[in-house]
Amino acid sequence: LARIALDAMGGDYAPQAPVTGTLLALREFGGDHTFQLIGQSAVVSKVLEELLAGDFADVAERARASIEIIEAPDVVSMSDKPAAALRGKPNSSMIVGLRRHAEGLADAFVSAGNTGAQMAASTVILKLHEGLRRPAIGTLFPSALDPVLVLDSGANVDCSPDEYVQFARLGSVYAETILGRKNPSIGLLSIGEEAEKGNAVVKEANRLLSTTSGINFQGNVEGRDIPAGASDRGPIDIVVCDGFVGNVLLKFYEAAAPLIVGLVGRHAGLDREQLEQAFGHLDYSEYGGAPLLGVKGVSIISHGKSSPRALKNAIRVGIRAVESRMSEHMGSRLAPVQQTAALGESA
Amino acid sequence: LARIALDAMGGDYAPQAPVTGTLLALREFGGDHTFQLIGQSAVVSKVLEELLAGDFADVAERARASIEIIEAPDVVSMSDKPAAALRGKPNSSMIVGLRRHAEGLADAFVSAGNTGAQMAASTVILKLHEGLRRPAIGTLFPSALDPVLVLDSGANVDCSPDEYVQFARLGSVYAETILGRKNPSIGLLSIGEEAEKGNAVVKEANRLLSTTSGINFQGNVEGRDIPAGASDRGPIDIVVCDGFVGNVLLKFYEAAAPLIVGLVGRHAGLDREQLEQAFGHLDYSEYGGAPLLGVKGVSIISHGKSSPRALKNAIRVGIRAVESRMSEHMGSRLAPVQQTAALGESA
Repeated sequence: LARIALDAMGGDYAPQAPVTGTLLALREFGGDHTFQLIGQSAVVSKVLEELLAGDFADVAERARASIEIIEAPDVVSMSDKPAAALRGKPNSSMIVGLRRHAEGLADAFVSAGNTGAQMAASTVILKLHEGLRRPAIGTLFPSALDPVLVLDSGANVDCSPDEYVQFARLGSVYAETILGRKNPSIGLLSIGEEAEKGNAVVKEANRLLSTTSGINFQGNVEGRDIPAGASDRGPIDIVVCDGFVGNVLLKFYEAAAPLIVGLVGRHAGLDREQLEQAFGHLDYSEYGGAPLLGVKGVSIISHGKSSPRALKNAIRVGIRAVESRMSEHMGSRLAPVQQTAALGESA
Repeated sequence: LARIALDAMGGDYAPQAPVTGTLLALREFGGDHTFQLIGQSAVVSKVLEELLAGDFADVAERARASIEIIEAPDVVSMSDKPAAALRGKPNSSMIVGLRRHAEGLADAFVSAGNTGAQMAASTVILKLHEGLRRPAIGTLFPSALDPVLVLDSGANVDCSPDEYVQFARLGSVYAETILGRKNPSIGLLSIGEEAEKGNAVVKEANRLLSTTSGINFQGNVEGRDIPAGASDRGPIDIVVCDGFVGNVLLKFYEAAAPLIVGLVGRHAGLDREQLEQAFGHLDYSEYGGAPLLGVKGVSIISHGKSSPRALKNAIRVGIRAVESRMSEHMGSRLAPVQQTAALGESA
């Protein structure tokens, strides 16, 4: 049973997409989950009523019992600076939703709004687990095998070696609780498989990861192992890297995939609809949303262009995170980096 | 008129591919270029004679006048460590070929052999232009517009900000002389378009690049701008990044492109041949070879899996580099980073 707070004003297609996504979730997921639509209540209410009188008449009765509209007069725009949104719009749907979560009135918060603002507000309002300087973002990359979780993909650009260990721990809990991977395998992104390959920080991160217990570290992986979903040593569930590299890769893939699909499609004479179908396999936004990793609580980040279906999937991620007690597991796994073995080695 | 030394023993398909590539070049390119096939002369000679008696009978007479076989008994394998190859195999085709270039007996060296060994041997034997610590590798990434030159793609993993300026200068000369781009535009790879986005080194590199004269610096670009071939500010010819990020991207793309092509192709019911045709547009190895940037001379690096056609294209890159005096232009452009404007700014 999860109580999900939704940012009804967040994303390019709000409030239509979040409200519709909520109704899809209500219809498709079992359980007695409840939903709080946070936003300008007059607007949200109108959209909700229209949907319940139309396509969602079948769930109208359940909706009235399990969906609540919570007033939040302000809206964080996609272009607002995070700090300004945090200070200047305390009554925005984003801040109100996160505050309800922090106060125990909701178990998770889901938003397709301004990602930077969501990160900053989640950090300030929910707080971080001990030992973290910033939260991390994990992104699922489609691969030839199962999707690979790449983190950090943008929150932490200058990383010290011990932050890679935190990413490995955060990613492990995410992969276990949300993706259902058992003993997920972790690769450290570098420019060669050997431990001595890489830049100075990555080489030291390899050493720390190798001596960290409780994670399934498989050594260095290379760029090619992400689309492959595996290195020579076997399948890879998680790839850790700094947020600079992760963000460059994410944006590169986001643009390269449709370029390649388009090139091949034109070559093959595919029409637009066939192309879109083919592309579905590669559209990582279809995973719905990614939990912001490291905060005390559940803050699900969805792409600004999320469809109702993507938001429904994001809600599912939120429900899973609540039910699996993801955040508590993270807190207990984020002990300070174990230095004993490392010190022993250099002695 | 260029005298090209070829590593006849380098690459997965040697000596067949380099010898055939040389004959293709002889047949297709005008001019009185001459070719030196460096390798185990008995083996190379046998392959050459067979080709001249068969598919290349039409150029047999020209071949006898313009192709010379130079004995080099040793072979650098793809798995040899660079330093070991350099010390332990002084009579390898790679070392003999580069030495001939350094001694003025050849104008360029082309190899599909061990890239690390070629880099190390080129650096030691040809020497670097002043102000460089290591050579750089520029790789052409296919894009929606013209291919984008990404450098460094693997030689320099821990870069100081001034090395980005050297990459910009090296890339500019490459783009002008080999790719024929006028006043090539340069982007600095980062995680946002604004100058203040990035990690500490990249932010400082942005400042240095902004105050460097003689280059067409367009500010930061993001991962998505590489496949697009452009940022919001216009088309991009060159993207500079450190060799860690460049190598990760290169290997990622190398694996992601066939994965996506395969996915879409299966979806569209393409057969193997159609897939290969479609993929041709994306196969960066078809550019043939890339000059190792920063050495005093012309050392063309080709992919180990280079086909005869790829090696022919690599020879063309070598001829262009010689005829355009690429290396001399690089030497004259690689003045120490101009610090005056930067100092002025912080005053």
